[in-house]
Parts: sequence; structure tokens; C-alpha cells
Amino acid sequence: MLVPHALNASHHVAGTYAGQPDNLGWWDNMVGPGKPLDTRRFFVIGVNNLGGCHGSSGPITTNPATGKPWGGDFPVVTVEDWVAAQARLADRLGIERFAAVMGGSLGAMQALQWTLSFPERVRHALVIAATPTLTAQNIAFNEVARQAIVTDPDFHDGHYYERGVLPRRGLRLARMIGHITYLSDDAMMEKFGRVLRRGRPGYDFDIDFEVESYLRYQGDKFAGYFDANTYLRITKALDYFDPAADFGGDLSAALARARANFLVISFTSDWRFAPSRSREIVRALLDNRRVVSYLELDAPHGHDAFLMEDARYMAAVRAYFENIAP
Amino acid sequence: MLVPHALNASHHVAGTYAGQPDNLGWWDNMVGPGKPLDTRRFFVIGVNNLGGCHGSSGPITTNPATGKPWGGDFPVVTVEDWVAAQARLADRLGIERFAAVMGGSLGAMQALQWTLSFPERVRHALVIAATPTLTAQNIAFNEVARQAIVTDPDFHDGHYYERGVLPRRGLRLARMIGHITYLSDDAMMEKFGRVLRRGRPGYDFDIDFEVESYLRYQGDKFAGYFDANTYLRITKALDYFDPAADFGGDLSAALARARANFLVISFTSDWRFAPSRSREIVRALLDNRRVVSYLELDAPHGHDAFLMEDARYMAAVRAYFENIAP
Repeated sequence: MLVPHALNASHHVAGTYAGQPDNLGWWDNMVGPGKPLDTRRFFVIGVNNLGGCHGSSGPITTNPATGKPWGGDFPVVTVEDWVAAQARLADRLGIERFAAVMGGSLGAMQALQWTLSFPERVRHALVIAATPTLTAQNIAFNEVARQAIVTDPDFHDGHYYERGVLPRRGLRLARMIGHITYLSDDAMMEKFGRVLRRGRPGYDFDIDFEVESYLRYQGDKFAGYFDANTYLRITKALDYFDPAADFGGDLSAALARARANFLVISFTSDWRFAPSRSREIVRALLDNRRVVSYLELDAPHGHDAFLMEDARYMAAVRAYFENIAP
Repeated sequence: MLVPHALNASHHVAGTYAGQPDNLGWWDNMVGPGKPLDTRRFFVIGVNNLGGCHGSSGPITTNPATGKPWGGDFPVVTVEDWVAAQARLADRLGIERFAAVMGGSLGAMQALQWTLSFPERVRHALVIAATPTLTAQNIAFNEVARQAIVTDPDFHDGHYYERGVLPRRGLRLARMIGHITYLSDDAMMEKFGRVLRRGRPGYDFDIDFEVESYLRYQGDKFAGYFDANTYLRITKALDYFDPAADFGGDLSAALARARANFLVISFTSDWRFAPSRSREIVRALLDNRRVVSYLELDAPHGHDAFLMEDARYMAAVRAYFENIAP
């Protein structure tokens, strides 16, 4: 079972490392012994995407040609590249065929791409909170995030490591923008409302509303551990993903290669990758007479719902896996 | 007739200045001789909001106490302040009562506030693409824009004029973020799609998609003429606006003071100030037995629809004014 990750996650899908009891994997509610993806039945592989900053070769690793970090010279990689790299890992591990590839968001794009790049090597694809392509608005948000990074005076065309600086300001803004798109308006209102931190308007530019505090905190935290060059490349991979591009935009033709069975799940409040986008995938798969289960969950959390605890969501994934032979 | 402006506009509501035939007012399709707001029947006043950068006292004007620009010392102003300033202008001009105050977006907040601050001085309020308060998501977008400006190394706590620099990078990002929220996802898709400027992916960080080119252009243009300190203050005025705050959140109680008749208009694709927010205003006015007409237009353009040509929209405003005595 392969679980590729989304934007800011890593190979650390579930569980803890020795001596780090608080450092839980990013999908620990979904993956583990007795969890919907039950590790007592399935062997689960988590990977770092090529170009990432959590262990895989990426902009922070050394370019053998120069002996310095790749930095801005690290190539732009695509979802297809990631899947190809994962297939080479599978070769190395002697895995001919995965019982399933399962992902959410950018991870879902990889699950879908697996069924196209290596149709015979995936029995089931779980495609959650997905889209067949980014919309112009999705690309626009990514572009503002990228512009925040590349116009940060500490960016230096991506060669900031050598100068001992980091484009933290840009990365912080990129993360703040991203965070807004991961949550629904209603979920933000529920969580933060219009609550004033100081009890009354400050009439200044310190933190007034709780939501400002949250965003600054998330931005600062992210800028402290994530790599800006990686962020740039991952957003590009998102923008470029378009399996129908080589088929004149015909997604049904693009998905004709797929041989897997599918579980597609979307969330009503996800305005980033709206349910209508998942339905495009479902329709294209049905055009090809694939076996598809589709679940559109009335969940309030927005795009991030794919990471959240929701009894119906967990039950659906559990039920799907219970019907799969390991 | 008073027409207060929204975020980046000015007193130049309609028409042209001598020798500048291409420099049209921002609501020229709505206001002018024979237009829905017909200047052959009504005398229309456009104002610059206090703290702005198009002629009113603001951060770029001289602080008499120091002989230098106010810069970061210019106070944070509110919608109530703007309305109070406009009322003083009306006093000066000998206007006891406006036939109507009409605005869209932030202009609509001013129109609504007029009916609360000076109930006897407004006969009609046209409240278009409005909201009774910003949501947490609205505030979040404003906060990212502000953080882009205040973390620009050229910001210098708002005292950039004296240093001969401008926080253009931050202002550019702020505008890019704003622009995304003014358009609907569908309108952006219709306008830009996923069209690649170079015909194929560049696998670099130059402009790939048309929407990126558009955003960069809009950001650069805005950073060339708008003032960052003004931008900060206007977003704060938006965030703070909350007529129900002094009434325990009860909008009906807050609007009990209003005496005007109302035309409220919203646009289905406006995800910034969604129609449900306009309906809150309508409901609160009806609770107070005000005369209210409400129009929810199925328009594709998003929040910016209030500035666009739409036959039904124009006809509705025209019809409303035809029933008003000048």
C-alpha cells in the first residue's frame, strides 16, 4: 500500500518515532493498527517526494557537480516524475503491484497518476479531495505564494543557503495564503469568528482578530521548517498536473488507460478542489466502465477535511479496505 | 446624491477631465447623463475618503506637527469616520439631506452607515455587493495583504517616504491577493482558463499561465500608483466595520435607527461578500419595517460584478432612481 503525501507532509504518514511521543504522522487518524487503513492487514509505504525537504533529494541537498546545494538549480518536478520515482522504489523493493495507492489533495493526484503511468501496478486507487486540474483561481493563489517567495530580498534566485539567509518573509506569506484556501469560510468563522484578541479594536497594526494571530503563527511555524525552493516546485507540480492535456482536454480519453478500481471522495465545503471537480474524475472513469465508488461528504472543514476526523469518512475508507484482499 | 468609493477608487466617479479622454471615472457605466444614475436629474458628489491617496488628507500629506509626511503616524480611520467627514462636507455645502447615498462594497458600507449615523439626512440608500461585517476569511485575506506590506523591508514602519523608497513588493502582493477575491473562480476560468503563455510548460518560474501574467500586471500597476499606508488603513476600516457590535451582535437592533428606504443588490457569484450577507441586511431592515427592495442577480463576475455592465443590474438601478424625486 502506497500513501504519497500532499504539499507540506512527508514519509512520516502515521505513528511515532522512538523518544518522540508527540510527533505523530500526518495521517495518523487514518493509518495504523485498527485504523481505517489497518496496518495489521496492510504494509504501508510512505515516501518523500523528489524535490522535497524531508529526506528526498531536493534543493537543499548537494549538487554533485558543484559540491554546493542545488538551490535554484534544482529542476522543476512533476506529479508524473514523482510517480516514476515511486515506481523505481517499488522495483527496488520487489513490489510488482500495490494493493492500493491512496492520497488526498496532491497525494490524490499521485494516486490517479499511478493508474495512468502504471495501470497494471495498482489494484485500487483512493482519490480524496482531488481535482483533475487546477483552476485559474487555484493557479492564481499559487502564483501569489510564489511571487511572495521570489520577491523576498533574501531569495537570491534560490541560492540563499550559500548566503546564510532564508526567504522567511516570503515563505510565511505563502503559507498564510495557503492556509486560507485549506479552510472553508464557515469553518474559519466557527473557529475564530470576529473575536478580538484585546477585547476591543486596537486601531493599530498589531493583532486585532484571532484569525490574524492564527495565520501569523502558522506562517511563522512553516517558515521555520519548510524550504522555499521546495514550496516553489510543489506549487508548480500542482499547476502543471493535467492528465487530459495530451488528449485535447478529454479526461475520459486520458483515463482510458486506467485499470484500477476507484474510491473517490470529496467534501462539500472544499472550495479549493470542489466536489464538482471530483465528479469530473468519476464521470470520466464511468465513461471507461471502471469500478468506481464515489462519496461526497457534507463536511464543514473545507479542503483540509481530508485530514480530519469524521466518522462517516473513516467508516467509508474502512469499509472499502475491508473488501480488499491484502 | 453622494457616491462614496470602495478600496482603490476616488472622487473621480464618472466622466473625464479636460484633455484626458481615456481616464474614465470608476463608475462611468452607472453615473452620467442618461445613465442609470442620471446626472441630468441628480447632482452627484464624489469624495475622497479620509486617509486615502487621491487628494484627501492621508499618510502622504504633511503632518503639521512635524513638517514631514504623516506616514505610519496617520491614524487608523473607520467607516464611521468617513461618514462623519462626508457629513461635515455636506454641512459646508449646505446639503441638509441627500436624495440618496449609493455605494458598492466598501462604498456600500458607507451608504449603510449613513443611514445609522445620520438617519434623517438620507432618503434612500443603495447598498450593493455589501456585507454587515467581514467574515474571518475576509479578515484573513486582508491580514495577509497587510503582512505582505509591513514585512516588506522598504516599509520602515510606514515612514518610507522620508527614505526615498516604497514598499512596492508588499503592495504588489496585496493587490494580487485582493484581485483573486474580487473575481469568481468561474470568471477567472472563463477569462484565462489554463492557457499557457509559451504554449507549453516552461518548467521554470517565468510566466506559464495567462492568469499569472494578469496578476503580475495588476500588482505592478497598483504598486505604481497606490499608497501602502492607505491600503493598510482601508483594510482595517473594512475589518472593523460592524454596526451590530454595540448591540450584542443584533443587526436588527443596530438598524432600528435607519429611516431611509433601501435598495440592496447582491451577485450570486460574489464569494467575497456573498448574497447571504446581503440577505442579513435585508432581514434586519424588514424587522424594522423599512421599505426595502432586494435584488439578487445571477451574475458570473464575482464581487467585481458591482462595477460591471449588466443589463438587468443597470435597469434595476435606473428604475429605482426613476421613482425617486430629485
